[in-house]
Parts: sequence; structure tokens; C-alpha cells
Amino acid sequence: MTWLDLPADHPFGLHNLPYGVFSTGGPDGERRVGVRVGDHVLDLAACAERAGMESAVVWRGGSLDAFLAEGRPAWTAARAWLQDHLSDDAARDCVEPNLVPVGEVTMHLPFTVADYVDFYASEHHATNVGRIFRPDSEPLTPNWKHLPIGYHGRAGTVVVSGTDVVRPTGQRRPPTQEAPVFGPSVRLDIEAELGFVVGGPATGLGRRVDLDDADDHLFGVVLLNDWSARDLQAWEYVPLGPFLGKSFATTVGPWVVTTDALRAARVPLPGQDPEPLPYLRGRDGADGGPGTAYGLDVHVEVEWNGTAVSRPEYRDMYWSPVQMLTHLTVNGATIRPGDLFGSGTISGADPGTRGSFLELSWSGQEPLTLDDGSQRSFLEDGDTVTLRATAPGPDGSVVGFGECTGTVRPAV
Amino acid sequence: MTWLDLPADHPFGLHNLPYGVFSTGGPDGERRVGVRVGDHVLDLAACAERAGMESAVVWRGGSLDAFLAEGRPAWTAARAWLQDHLSDDAARDCVEPNLVPVGEVTMHLPFTVADYVDFYASEHHATNVGRIFRPDSEPLTPNWKHLPIGYHGRAGTVVVSGTDVVRPTGQRRPPTQEAPVFGPSVRLDIEAELGFVVGGPATGLGRRVDLDDADDHLFGVVLLNDWSARDLQAWEYVPLGPFLGKSFATTVGPWVVTTDALRAARVPLPGQDPEPLPYLRGRDGADGGPGTAYGLDVHVEVEWNGTAVSRPEYRDMYWSPVQMLTHLTVNGATIRPGDLFGSGTISGADPGTRGSFLELSWSGQEPLTLDDGSQRSFLEDGDTVTLRATAPGPDGSVVGFGECTGTVRPAV
Repeated sequence: MTWLDLPADHPFGLHNLPYGVFSTGGPDGERRVGVRVGDHVLDLAACAERAGMESAVVWRGGSLDAFLAEGRPAWTAARAWLQDHLSDDAARDCVEPNLVPVGEVTMHLPFTVADYVDFYASEHHATNVGRIFRPDSEPLTPNWKHLPIGYHGRAGTVVVSGTDVVRPTGQRRPPTQEAPVFGPSVRLDIEAELGFVVGGPATGLGRRVDLDDADDHLFGVVLLNDWSARDLQAWEYVPLGPFLGKSFATTVGPWVVTTDALRAARVPLPGQDPEPLPYLRGRDGADGGPGTAYGLDVHVEVEWNGTAVSRPEYRDMYWSPVQMLTHLTVNGATIRPGDLFGSGTISGADPGTRGSFLELSWSGQEPLTLDDGSQRSFLEDGDTVTLRATAPGPDGSVVGFGECTGTVRPAV
Repeated sequence: MTWLDLPADHPFGLHNLPYGVFSTGGPDGERRVGVRVGDHVLDLAACAERAGMESAVVWRGGSLDAFLAEGRPAWTAARAWLQDHLSDDAARDCVEPNLVPVGEVTMHLPFTVADYVDFYASEHHATNVGRIFRPDSEPLTPNWKHLPIGYHGRAGTVVVSGTDVVRPTGQRRPPTQEAPVFGPSVRLDIEAELGFVVGGPATGLGRRVDLDDADDHLFGVVLLNDWSARDLQAWEYVPLGPFLGKSFATTVGPWVVTTDALRAARVPLPGQDPEPLPYLRGRDGADGGPGTAYGLDVHVEVEWNGTAVSRPEYRDMYWSPVQMLTHLTVNGATIRPGDLFGSGTISGADPGTRGSFLELSWSGQEPLTLDDGSQRSFLEDGDTVTLRATAPGPDGSVVGFGECTGTVRPAV
């Protein structure tokens, strides 16, 4: 397949080629845009300059920002150029000297997050949370099946995998009290999600993105952990939604897997009833194919201190990423390159596929037992959570997302 | 007072000196940082360069971003330097050639908005909205007097005064129906607010800002109109808060009035009962002075198609801007220069001081009559809303904020 020594089943083969930002010589080294190839990272600007590409400048600057802004034609051209060069013996001279072993790099936040939105697209997650947070009401609110519910989060606290997460402090109200108490969160949780990275030129104010065009604005997908302090969230979130219970940290994986690499992972949605309003409908899939409003067959794994505690399946999600993007702009809101939106927690009907500890421990009533024998409902200081994911690629290949990991540090 | 021909009661005298970004020759002209002096705008970089200041470079770049990042010592030094130069006859040569009549400039968004948060700090507004949106519950939620409730908004749709606002389209549910309908908002509203502009170096993840230090992170204040589609908002906001009902546009005034210029406008808060948790308490004011958790005596006027329909008083607000900033970081969330937070609608006990049309028309039950005899509850296409504000300055002077205006265009 390629002169690179890559086994056909490698999750970072030429069918994948996710983008990231790395440095060598530690975290303070110069930041460079790279693409993951097998167990190496290719320094893209250096390779493209050596190849005499004028457009190499788009990969200078230490982030994906300029490349994101270019849009679909440039992304497609770059992918084709990379696949050519990585399989053409004649291009060895510009590739080989610019490959860095992945063990020698430090990864950084791959792009400047413009606006960050988090959706709530799993029916099973929304139902579980409704049962736990609002036991006296219908678990799904009346709007839930008519629109992908979302809210804005804090872009400035999106951090890259490997960043320590300091336990947040704030107000919570113990169940038996009228007044809140102050202190470190005692119900620190995760949410296993995918994050969608928006690119292409900024849209104009008042212009909406049609669902059938939404894909042109989606550059790629990252693993995302929406750390959540459930006690802070429960006290603060009525009536204006989650705020400090979420804003302390959101971790994204270092590798942006392109939507091009995920073509073979498209699947039909599990089914939407009632049928959504026309602006949220895409073209039907021919011959049972996924259609414009597609789902994604991504398998996620949640590991807690080395124990795999859940295996969420992204194909169970009710709303499609293109429906989320379309909804986000239906009111005329602009999108900009670098916008990021999370899917919301990925949870399925099976308890072993729930994407938050709130659900896995049923609000602490059913603690989990880890491989070392310890019991957990929520995170303790020193705990490490790692998300991993794969998706089917073309011809039986596997697309890897890498890891999205973080360790909890004590409150300060 | 100065060799400039400025009457002592001018709202843009040397006691004010708000910052903005302007161009000449239309909106596409080069963007320059300016300070408002009387009926002129001083080109700051040009003036400082002419004066031989090395630090003039901070005002190059077409935005306030670099100046915001410098922090309180630089802001104080710049203010003193400006007040000196504008009152010193010897500095006429570097000032006079760089003064542009305010009628010849186009104003721009003065800084890159990093994260945008909107609070809900008026007890009267929150009570009124609670009565209208949730008539069967207590109007104030149990958390309201314990913490300044807030949520993240869309930074990418913050626009400068004068930008047209396109009526948003989306889902709303008519009162008698089960299912939503789709179309342009029929309850388009405003929220008259102040916006607080954060500056100084970014804080580190996990570090919180103490209330008594919060002022060092507050660069200045702008007028802010949080345009709101009440029908979209009512349908979507449970359980995760306002989203598309707000995210289509937020207008800010062109002039950032510095917190230094508002020292004389500090007043005690109207009173907080119950006493907030210790992290939200500041030092008491000596001799009945405002204390660290101060209010601001800013008089706002809301004009609808030329008719003054409301005069909100900022001194009625329950929560202090420094309490809002402190709360925002208590969970360890970072702040960055360019962060912007709105106060929430400014409404007082008197109906003539309500800061939204939802409240002024009591959800459409009591329409307003404008000076031209027309009646209004919510905005019609072509309507123009203008916010203005003043505050007391030192020695009987007045601090002006300029105008924050926008005209509604039909949905597209």
C-alpha cells in the first residue's frame, strides 16, 4: 500500500490522516501542524515546503486555524496530495526527514476555539438525566424530539488531552438543606462525546446553512470529554442552563479526524419520530444508505483508572451532526472557522453503553467496581479518565481517534 | 481645563476618554484605535508615535486587543498620559493633527470578543420574567439570591452599534398547539444592559479571582443590547437555557468607558438578603461608601423609533459586576482579555424603568404607544432601538456612553 512500513489494519493508515499540532523538545517547543501517519507525525509545513508547494504557508503559524478557514476544496486537495506523497516512492525525500516518532512529541490544542456549543443529542442520555434530575416530570421535555437542544459553553477552557483537570469549587445545595454550601464538587463526572470542528469561510449574519450544504462546513471530529460537576450544575441550572458546572474544563483529543476519513462510517440515523420540521430533514439515502442527515458508526470506550467501564456507540445518537449545525444557524447566527460543537453525552439503551458516571452509577445508587477492586460513583482526586474511539474505514480498515485523557487534581 | 474647546459639562470631556475603534473613508477604511475627546476621535497610535512613545505599538493592529491584555498599570498610565497631553499646550502638535470629527468616522467592534457571558442580575427583571414565563411557580428560583445566575452566549455574533439586525427564524410553539411551527420570530425584543470588558493577562486554569482583586480585571463598560426572540426562547430554553432565541445578535456600543472614568459613579448595592457566601462578599465601604462589591449609578435610556420608552437605573441591580466576575471564576475557569459579560436586563421596581419590551408591554397585554401614535408590544421590521447612558463623573461632570443602536430587517 505504501513504502511506509504500515500494516493494513493500522488505525492511522493512509485512509485516516488526522491533523493535530505538536512540538518536540517538550511543551514549550515550537508548535507545528502535523498529520498522524502510523506511529509517526509528519511535519506538514516542512514536508510541503520541501516539495515546493506554495500553499505550505497555511500550515505555518502553529495551529490549524488558517487551514480550517480555507474550506472544503483545500481540505480535499490536501488529502489527495498527502495520500499521493505518502504512497509515492519519489516523494520519500520530502516525507521521511519530516516524520517524528509519536512518542517524541507533545500535542497541543489543534485550533483556536471560536464559539463552543454543546448539544444533547442522545435520547437515552436525555431520558436518563431527566429521570435522575427531574423525577417528578416526563424525562424528555416536550421540545426534545423537535429540535436538537444545545447551549453555549466556555471556549476559553477547552484544553487538549493530557491537561490536568482541577476539581472545581462552588455552590451546591445538600438535599436536606434550604441554603447552599461552598466547597469542592463532590460529584465530579465526565461526559463522553464527539466534538465537531467547523471550517470554511465565516458565514454572514442573517444567513442560514441548509442541511444539504452543512457538510461543507464540517472539517472534522475529535473526541471530547465534557467534565461536569453534577452538584454545582443541579443547583445553578434553572432557569438559564448549565454554567459553572461545566465551564471549568472541556478536554478534546489531539487528533482531528476529517469528515473525509469518516465517509465509510456513515450510517442511517436510528429513526426520528415525529418527523422533524423541513429545515432539519435532509435528502433521503438511496438504497437505504445514510442520506444527508447521517449518523456515524463510531465505537467509543471509556476507561476509568485503567478499567473499561463503558462502550458507547455513536450510531445510537438521535440527532445528526448536520442537523445540529443547521439548527445552530437557522436563526441567522454566523459560524466561523474554529467553532466547535459537542454531540452531548453518547449513551445507548444498554447500561454498558452509557457515557457518564451519573448514568453508569445511577446518581451514585449503583457504584461501579474497578479492576483494582475499588468502588466509584464519581471521580476522586488522582483518578484518570481516558476516552478512545475507532470507526470503520474503507475496505475493512479502521479509523483511529487516539486518546482523550485527563487526571483529576485536588481543588485549590 | 484644556486648550481644546470643551465645555465643562461635555459628556466626553477629559474625565471620560472612552476607547473605540474607527475608520475614515467608510467601513472598509483602515481600522484605528481612538479615544473620544469631545466631538472628536483622537487617533491614538498616530498621536503616541508623534509624541515618541515606544508603547504606541500597542494601539496599532486595529483593535483594543493588545491594550486590553496589558492590564491595569498600562491602562492607568495611558489615562494619565492622555489627560496630560490633552491639557498641555506643548502637546498640541501631536494631538491636533490626529483629531478626527466624530461625524467623519465609522465605528467598529472595539475588540475581539473571547468568551461572552450574560448574567441575570436584576431582581426586578428576573421576577417579572418569572411571573410571565412560569406563572405557576415562585417567580425567583431558589438559587437566585445565592449566586449571580449567568449563561454563555455567542461571542461570534456580538456586533457594533449600527449593525442591522435580521429578524431570526426558528421554531416556536403557539399556546394552543402541541407541535411547533416554523417561521420568523413574532416576539422580537430587546434587553437593555451594560457589558463589562475583561482585560489583563489571562488567568491560569484552576485559579480563581478574589472579589477584592476583581476590579484589576475590569477594563471598562459598554452599552449592550441583548436582542431576544421570546417565542423561540420560550420553546427551546428548558432544560439547558437560552440558545437560538439570543444567539442571532448582541449589539454593543462603540465606546468602552473605562472603570477609571466611573470611579465617581460607584454606589452601594441596594442590599443583599440573605448575605451571600463569603467568596461573594467584598470589603465593606467605609463611611457608607460603596465597598468593594459596588453598584454603578448609570442612567440608561431606551428609545424606540424616537420615543423614549424606558429609563432603567443601573443602581437598582442586585449583583455587583465584581461579584459576577468572581463567580465566573470560582470554579477555576480562566478569564482572557476580551471576555465580555453582560449584566442582564436592567429593570427597576417602577414600570418606567423596565429594560425589555416583554416587561414594558407585560408580554403583549399592555402595548406601548409611541410618539407617532402607533402601538407596539414587540419589534416590527424597520423599527430602530437606541440605548443611551450617562453616569456622574467627578466634580459634577457627566460621563457619556454614546449610543447603542440597531434597526430590524425582515427575516430572510
